[in-house]
Amino acid sequence: MFAVHHFSLEVATTAGTDILDLTTLVETRVQETGITQGLVHLFIPGSTAALTTIEYESGVVNDLRSAIERLFPRNIPYEHDRRWGDGNGYAHVRAAFLKPSLAIPLNDGRLELGTWQQIVLLDFDNRPRRRRIQGQVLGLRS
Amino acid sequence: MFAVHHFSLEVATTAGTDILDLTTLVETRVQETGITQGLVHLFIPGSTAALTTIEYESGVVNDLRSAIERLFPRNIPYEHDRRWGDGNGYAHVRAAFLKPSLAIPLNDGRLELGTWQQIVLLDFDNRPRRRRIQGQVLGLRS
Amino acid sequence: MFAVHHFSLEVATTAGTDILDLTTLVETRVQETGITQGLVHLFIPGSTAALTTIEYESGVVNDLRSAIERLFPRNIPYEHDRRWGDGNGYAHVRAAFLKPSLAIPLNDGRLELGTWQQIVLLDFDNRPRRRRIQGQVLGLRS
Repeated sequence: MFAVHHFSLEVATTAGTDILDLTTLVETRVQETGITQGLVHLFIPGSTAALTTIEYESGVVNDLRSAIERLFPRNIPYEHDRRWGDGNGYAHVRAAFLKPSLAIPLNDGRLELGTWQQIVLLDFDNRPRRRRIQGQVLGLRS
Repeated sequence: MFAVHHFSLEVATTAGTDILDLTTLVETRVQETGITQGLVHLFIPGSTAALTTIEYESGVVNDLRSAIERLFPRNIPYEHDRRWGDGNGYAHVRAAFLKPSLAIPLNDGRLELGTWQQIVLLDFDNRPRRRRIQGQVLGLRS
Repeated sequence: MFAVHHFSLEVATTAGTDILDLTTLVETRVQETGITQGLVHLFIPGSTAALTTIEYESGVVNDLRSAIERLFPRNIPYEHDRRWGDGNGYAHVRAAFLKPSLAIPLNDGRLELGTWQQIVLLDFDNRPRRRRIQGQVLGLRS
């Protein structure tokens, strides 16, 4: 039978490109739905954060952080900051590039991630935040 | 009852990294479907445009445009241009990076976007275009 | 009637940012499912590869490869390499940016791609791999 199940995750982040592993949280919530075949979609509301996957190992996580800093520096002028004084113009640009949406296939009750592939939230904002990730499980309940 | 509803949006763009807010158009079309729980998927056919979300405020929008110009300059040589003379090699590369697909959760009849988060089309092409965005709403009609 | 159909594709890649056109493979598998209305979701398990769309023409493909090399150079220090000696730190960072997930609308039995828009796998790893792409078709079988 087809089902849609909604869940949300709340996590606390720190300033400075916090990168958090959500995999276990997501897996637990998905298993509770009883849906075994379909799609798990994750979305982060807000315009200064994004979702992707990475091998959650502190070396790679730091490498990703360095690449983000190099490509989207904080210390160049941003019109957003001049206009609103938020000081987080760089965070908006990073989030628009990395995007807020990620979907993972669900097959035989298992998320089809690689062994060394974790789901991560990237929070680019310049202050600690409480973030709510919206999850949607679509598919068949056996 | 499960339903799939297809819709398409047509918008006119200008040359020069046009960034258009699609949020109200999408919301209207989604409400018409009567589907209240599920997923809204948007896709832009073509290889010189992309979809993402951003706070649709002209400062940030200009900041995003500047970052795109800095990371993927127009005025470096592109093999595509040498071969086909289109002059839009940079647009293809940008679109492949930013990607044509975006999904947003639909919950209790509402798109789960942040307050300051809008859905945008990025048109990278070097000439005005008519663009058709394909929307797919999957979920439960109550 | 609602259906979920899972399929997987296996492809062999070479080292050096291999970019492979998956469009025909995906189309064939989707047609076999008999699902004509819905969503086709593709996912690459693993943390050194990604999926996107591009005009699959060798000029543009080389242009994309050049942009990736310019933005995420191999020959800068990566913590991942220092720690694990894999030498593929750059590949992890590229994959996290380009992301492993892509969805394409399915309408009247046809993938809604543009004429010059192909589905591609980007393999960033520093050695040849056998890659398995996970496909999920969700929608209505007529």
